[in-house]
Amino acid sequence: MRKLYHYPLNAESRAIRIILAEKHLDYELIYEVPWEPTDALFEYSPTGLLPVFIDLNGTAIYGASSIREYLDEAYPETKLIPGDVEQKAEARKIADWFCTEFSLNVYSLIIDEKIYKRFSRTQSKTPNPDNIRTALSNFSLHMEYISWLAERRNWLAGKQFSIADIYAASYISVMDYLDCISWNKHELAKEWYAKIKSRPSFRKILQDKVSQISPAKDYANLDF
Amino acid sequence: MRKLYHYPLNAESRAIRIILAEKHLDYELIYEVPWEPTDALFEYSPTGLLPVFIDLNGTAIYGASSIREYLDEAYPETKLIPGDVEQKAEARKIADWFCTEFSLNVYSLIIDEKIYKRFSRTQSKTPNPDNIRTALSNFSLHMEYISWLAERRNWLAGKQFSIADIYAASYISVMDYLDCISWNKHELAKEWYAKIKSRPSFRKILQDKVSQISPAKDYANLDF
Repeated sequence: MRKLYHYPLNAESRAIRIILAEKHLDYELIYEVPWEPTDALFEYSPTGLLPVFIDLNGTAIYGASSIREYLDEAYPETKLIPGDVEQKAEARKIADWFCTEFSLNVYSLIIDEKIYKRFSRTQSKTPNPDNIRTALSNFSLHMEYISWLAERRNWLAGKQFSIADIYAASYISVMDYLDCISWNKHELAKEWYAKIKSRPSFRKILQDKVSQISPAKDYANLDF
Repeated sequence: MRKLYHYPLNAESRAIRIILAEKHLDYELIYEVPWEPTDALFEYSPTGLLPVFIDLNGTAIYGASSIREYLDEAYPETKLIPGDVEQKAEARKIADWFCTEFSLNVYSLIIDEKIYKRFSRTQSKTPNPDNIRTALSNFSLHMEYISWLAERRNWLAGKQFSIADIYAASYISVMDYLDCISWNKHELAKEWYAKIKSRPSFRKILQDKVSQISPAKDYANLDF
């Protein structure tokens, strides 16, 4: 059986789960917490980086970008990096934006404040409200850009559903779980996210619950 | 003419310069500072993310992962993500490790403390020596893993020179410029880095100087 080491509120783990579901590939989910990686995880991922995917033939890969490239090459029936070399670049650059800028300037700050500081034993426990404020102010700019793209295109990278939508939705779904989104301020982004929420590949993501952290009220509702 | 918007001490900009040099592609370098992105940069990169590459046909891409994938597809004569689907995954996962774990836990902390806090007008100026200590302690673990790989393989991802070496060397060269490496503690990593330093594609990287930030004494020396 294929395996995926993941943490439910890790955006990149979510992205790979959606890709696997879109490609109709069966796999077993193995729960890890990012601040206390197990020895089993270290066997595949030298610094405990999540997610880790292990294919049927034993190929083990860590990191969402390398796993997504591998899956699109090894299982090309449903292409999630579709089109010609320019269209593929468009999808990858939007996915990249989330893995780098969004991750650094929004997501990591929120995860640090709302999760790591609460549960990690090694990290300082002192909350820093400035971090949340900075993250939410940056987040607003990112949401505006999503709205801008959603207004002009079927899906974020163009006519076809792609990793651009998958990565954006993965990061945004974690922000949504943690009740960080005022959807009424972002109508166009909301319309796009509603389309994602209704995809069968997203269903299990919306059912995720993490012990001691309740999701926002409308997190799993298709009408939000 | 192809264009690359870059900052000399931005590791991902360096990675793309090495890829372009390995592929013998001509391009013009356009200098940007990450903390004051110009309007020209924003035209191509919504949040000012560097590097940005613009190809002859006008295709504009931001983010090092998407640019590297594009270049290996659009200019496949010299493959820098070589081999079969498993070998490609191995190269990508090591590159990914640098863009995520290394970037977050080592590089960003050092860049924040040694560059952003010194030059950015918007960021807090208060140095935090804890950040440097944490970064250097994490860095040591990363260097051990590079040594472990270098001992077992020709190049970091296997028999062939690849993006794994390029990304690792790009990040490490910035650490080296900023005088953060005790090379005598990491003999095997040093042997691997000496091979990279002697490649023609690395020559311009070693000539880089940034105003008001002098490189470490042996930064550009092939014998270090």
